[in-house]
Amino acid sequence: MTSRIEVTEKILSSNDELALINRKYLDDANVFGVNIMASPGAGKTTFIIKTLESLGGRLKFGVIEGDLASSIDSDKAKAAGIPAVQINTGGECHLDAVMLDGAIKSLDLSMLDLLIVENVGNLVCPINFKIGTHMNILVASIPEGDDKPYKYPGAYRGVEVLIISKIDLLPYVPFNMEYFKKGVEVLNPGLITFVLSAKTGEGMNLWADWLVDKVNAWRERN
Amino acid sequence: MTSRIEVTEKILSSNDELALINRKYLDDANVFGVNIMASPGAGKTTFIIKTLESLGGRLKFGVIEGDLASSIDSDKAKAAGIPAVQINTGGECHLDAVMLDGAIKSLDLSMLDLLIVENVGNLVCPINFKIGTHMNILVASIPEGDDKPYKYPGAYRGVEVLIISKIDLLPYVPFNMEYFKKGVEVLNPGLITFVLSAKTGEGMNLWADWLVDKVNAWRERN
Repeated sequence: MTSRIEVTEKILSSNDELALINRKYLDDANVFGVNIMASPGAGKTTFIIKTLESLGGRLKFGVIEGDLASSIDSDKAKAAGIPAVQINTGGECHLDAVMLDGAIKSLDLSMLDLLIVENVGNLVCPINFKIGTHMNILVASIPEGDDKPYKYPGAYRGVEVLIISKIDLLPYVPFNMEYFKKGVEVLNPGLITFVLSAKTGEGMNLWADWLVDKVNAWRERN
Repeated sequence: MTSRIEVTEKILSSNDELALINRKYLDDANVFGVNIMASPGAGKTTFIIKTLESLGGRLKFGVIEGDLASSIDSDKAKAAGIPAVQINTGGECHLDAVMLDGAIKSLDLSMLDLLIVENVGNLVCPINFKIGTHMNILVASIPEGDDKPYKYPGAYRGVEVLIISKIDLLPYVPFNMEYFKKGVEVLNPGLITFVLSAKTGEGMNLWADWLVDKVNAWRERN
């Protein structure tokens, strides 16, 4: 019997190959791809929709929404005027490069500067599967508590940007920001971090301005 | 090459066999076992510690804490006077029967009426692995949002009790309780549900009273 580890390695390796093909597909279209990960209910979809508002037309983007079931998130994105494709993973706790390959071709990339992929809500599985995007973002919401970097180190280690969201809830929940940030710093020193509330809009402009610069710089270099 | 599905099935089958052995071990000790699942940061640990207070000595319980990393949760439980064992899963997104088998033997079951297992914070993986406990509980926290039953149907289908937690945050976040409960009802009709806040204590007594009756009835029958 082939061992579990060998099989998993083979699956990962063919996933990585397909991720590279997805990456080239985005590069050729000059579209910057981001992969947003978070716990269930961290507010990824609201954050994405509010990012559209804060961008004020400076970037055109589309989204690919990953969920086990339902089209709730892509329906929300479409209602906000964002081109959106839904992936339902069935039982899988993460997106993979095959799923993205299918979804990406349903979007007209020639109309976009940026592709935002909202991964399945999960702090463990998604970070282990490359999908072909250029940047990993983790959304950590205040009500999840300040101990998450200590408990889910892989998620915090594997990202280039951290969004600390729902800061409007800080007065109502126990959350020690210093303790949280200390945990992050050990895992991912100097991680680019935005502290914001998609609900009140606080901090959204700083994030949107940074994103515009990041995507434009990449598109010029690409 | 053995296919991924075949290998997974073999792993699940041997897991299920060991889960039955764990179950017998609990039965023989006359200890009722519960498996608590939730998203990361739903407040499982606080809920467990506040359950101790609400029980007021009516049941003696111990906990097994499952996390990818850290001993934060078992440290908290021990500080509250609860016998506690920590399992670190490394990269795994769930507990399994092998992990429980190891941990369960570190507790003196002769001193306990109830064993509470706090699974890894994850709405996808844990429900797929039996560990040998008698009852599955899902903790759903208000700030996660009202769409979770629609997005994570497996988690809601596979439990016998639902705890809707952090209701003290209802004034501060968008959450349509009717929409949430409608989603649950479709997946798991008549699911026993407690609506509470471990922080303010609201609803904790109803839950604790029910738990005492449940455990005592089981122990008499066992």
